[in-house]
Amino acid sequence: MSTYHSLNNEEAISLAKSIPGIFSESTVLNCREIGDGNLNLVFHVTSENSTESIIIKQAVPYAKVVGESWPLSLDRARIERQSLEIQHRLCPDLVPQVYSYSDDLAYTAMEDLSEYTIMRKGLIDGNIYPNFAEHIGQFLARTLFFTSDLGMNQQEKKELAGRFVNPDLCKITEDLIFEDPYRASANNNYSASIEDEAEALRNDIPLHLEVALLREKFLTHAQALLHGDLHTGSIFVTTESTKVIDPEFAFFGPMGFDIGAVIGNLLLNYVAQPGWNQNGEDLTIREDRLLEMAKDVWTNFESSFRTLWNNEILDEMFQTPGYQDHYLTELLRDTAGFAGCKMIRRIVGLSHVADIDGIQDDSVREAAQRKALAIGKNLVRHNRSVNSIYDILKLVQLASTEIGVSK
Amino acid sequence: MSTYHSLNNEEAISLAKSIPGIFSESTVLNCREIGDGNLNLVFHVTSENSTESIIIKQAVPYAKVVGESWPLSLDRARIERQSLEIQHRLCPDLVPQVYSYSDDLAYTAMEDLSEYTIMRKGLIDGNIYPNFAEHIGQFLARTLFFTSDLGMNQQEKKELAGRFVNPDLCKITEDLIFEDPYRASANNNYSASIEDEAEALRNDIPLHLEVALLREKFLTHAQALLHGDLHTGSIFVTTESTKVIDPEFAFFGPMGFDIGAVIGNLLLNYVAQPGWNQNGEDLTIREDRLLEMAKDVWTNFESSFRTLWNNEILDEMFQTPGYQDHYLTELLRDTAGFAGCKMIRRIVGLSHVADIDGIQDDSVREAAQRKALAIGKNLVRHNRSVNSIYDILKLVQLASTEIGVSK
Repeated sequence: MSTYHSLNNEEAISLAKSIPGIFSESTVLNCREIGDGNLNLVFHVTSENSTESIIIKQAVPYAKVVGESWPLSLDRARIERQSLEIQHRLCPDLVPQVYSYSDDLAYTAMEDLSEYTIMRKGLIDGNIYPNFAEHIGQFLARTLFFTSDLGMNQQEKKELAGRFVNPDLCKITEDLIFEDPYRASANNNYSASIEDEAEALRNDIPLHLEVALLREKFLTHAQALLHGDLHTGSIFVTTESTKVIDPEFAFFGPMGFDIGAVIGNLLLNYVAQPGWNQNGEDLTIREDRLLEMAKDVWTNFESSFRTLWNNEILDEMFQTPGYQDHYLTELLRDTAGFAGCKMIRRIVGLSHVADIDGIQDDSVREAAQRKALAIGKNLVRHNRSVNSIYDILKLVQLASTEIGVSK
Repeated sequence: MSTYHSLNNEEAISLAKSIPGIFSESTVLNCREIGDGNLNLVFHVTSENSTESIIIKQAVPYAKVVGESWPLSLDRARIERQSLEIQHRLCPDLVPQVYSYSDDLAYTAMEDLSEYTIMRKGLIDGNIYPNFAEHIGQFLARTLFFTSDLGMNQQEKKELAGRFVNPDLCKITEDLIFEDPYRASANNNYSASIEDEAEALRNDIPLHLEVALLREKFLTHAQALLHGDLHTGSIFVTTESTKVIDPEFAFFGPMGFDIGAVIGNLLLNYVAQPGWNQNGEDLTIREDRLLEMAKDVWTNFESSFRTLWNNEILDEMFQTPGYQDHYLTELLRDTAGFAGCKMIRRIVGLSHVADIDGIQDDSVREAAQRKALAIGKNLVRHNRSVNSIYDILKLVQLASTEIGVSK
């Protein structure tokens, strides 16, 4: 018998008080529900007498993004909490700490990150995060390596994968990223001005083949425990620090899906640049910086991952000369392909990004949308022939130029 | 609290009597334990008064093949029984029927196939099975298609995969097939006369890379519910009929592992031919027939699989032009690679095949071993460039010729 019900502010406060060692006995607590309401309730519990605070995140049994008619298993709260715990163990500085939880009530109480900014907002505001590429490269390398057959006992990995079967949330990705953008679907969402682009996506058979192959990897390639939704809205930043949150889409899948999510979302901010900042700042510098950051995400990931491989692997077969290089090349190709899929779906699919939707001027926004699609399609089309991160940058610049010329 | 204990003949008879509809009330039952004793007890329960009989197979909590020190989860009895049920539902004529079971006692009572011959023995005896390729092609196509993302709901497939996590038995494959033959391992088992071959296997870095890539597919590529151990000792035959048994190694893995197991084991019988039959029969005909059978296994599988794909798939992304061909080519390549791995391990690894070990003449047996290794290595080395089943036959014939010349 489930005891599940939606928490209210009073219950959240009472739960917060019951966690030992966070708040002093005598403190008066306040609570505000601050979730964006898509999939979860988020309670921010603060103290009147001190700076202590916590977050209590509770899953609701449906996805509001498409109305209450899309039911979602509450088990995703357990999956998110266990992912947070694993990721925090592997990267204590880069993931919030879990204080307590209830699987029945589908909530997790965790470290409050109110002093942080959501990275997407920070990027839109033109901020610079000089440590981000290094931090996220570390996060990706350590979480992916140590939950794969490379970095953990191969029998324990199979048992762990069995505990991260996450069909409901994988279904969202399978539909919204790998299916709807290439079909006439009621889930799609784009303005009439780019109907030509949407139609081209529906009719591009060579592109469909690449998407189908990437989808197959998402469906079958149980390489490591992924975050599963690693866009810039799942990352909190300050100038010095980075925290990765919200791993409720976690499952065992292809590593490139996480790396591609980060790079694809940096590129979505990159295409939004020309129209966003209109106060005379040299936009080329900002664009270059974002491309540099995208490149650095990969190079930091790659060097951390190779170091782990060289230092941590005892298994002789994984030490076969040439294997590591082959593995990293395949990862890079997957990264390019998944980054492209993620860009495309944010333009024509259900869920968009504020980087682009926030552009006020219609024609500037449309130009950014077309540029995002051109880059996304280039990355998907050519993913299987990419050999270095510079090939990815070339595909980005080629698409940018083509769009520039065609305007 | 587990009630597990090893059954004795009296208990097996009493279990058999309790199954409704098999034996008449008044019948007198006899029981004999007929297992080869590696991983299981096998009770053959027969009636004195009629032709009715059943098999009761019980898992023991260790693998005898390496002494009692290799513990094995009894959960494999559940995995085997559920695999049998799924396979029987998909291929009722090709899989024995399950009558009853107990997960606590780790036994399954099933259809008796005493009138059948183990295919390996039948092939060694020089028998011909004209329907085999068609039957096993059907079995492979239907069991692999309908347990993959192609033939079942993709969310239900994830749940099903979670119920076939089979670390203990996968570990046996990972060690004995993908690791030991390429190392100095106490598990290896070969005569001093082919120490040169074993040493060459240990030092062949390009081969190791291909084995590592195939192992990675075995570790991560959750394509379909495999039988997992589909050699000719897991297949019962008569001239008309085929039954696939013993799926205790079942797990979600790469389809080519099952197809390659069948083809690799036919090729092991093929290399054993020249020395086996010494009564003047034209051996070339027999050899050609075995190669033809290996080819027909693939072509029957392929045509059944393509028919299922064309008729059963509603998913639009899987209908993308070019995708089916790409998928089948990848499957064929995996098939070649895994067939090669299976041949190699049966020569230098722990567990051999009677097709070759049964050859009386030392030099003829050694020639067969060298030929098996040459074919196996060729298939592994070139698996990623195979484009048709005829490429596989060419690799087989090339290896046979090279060995012929070097003798």
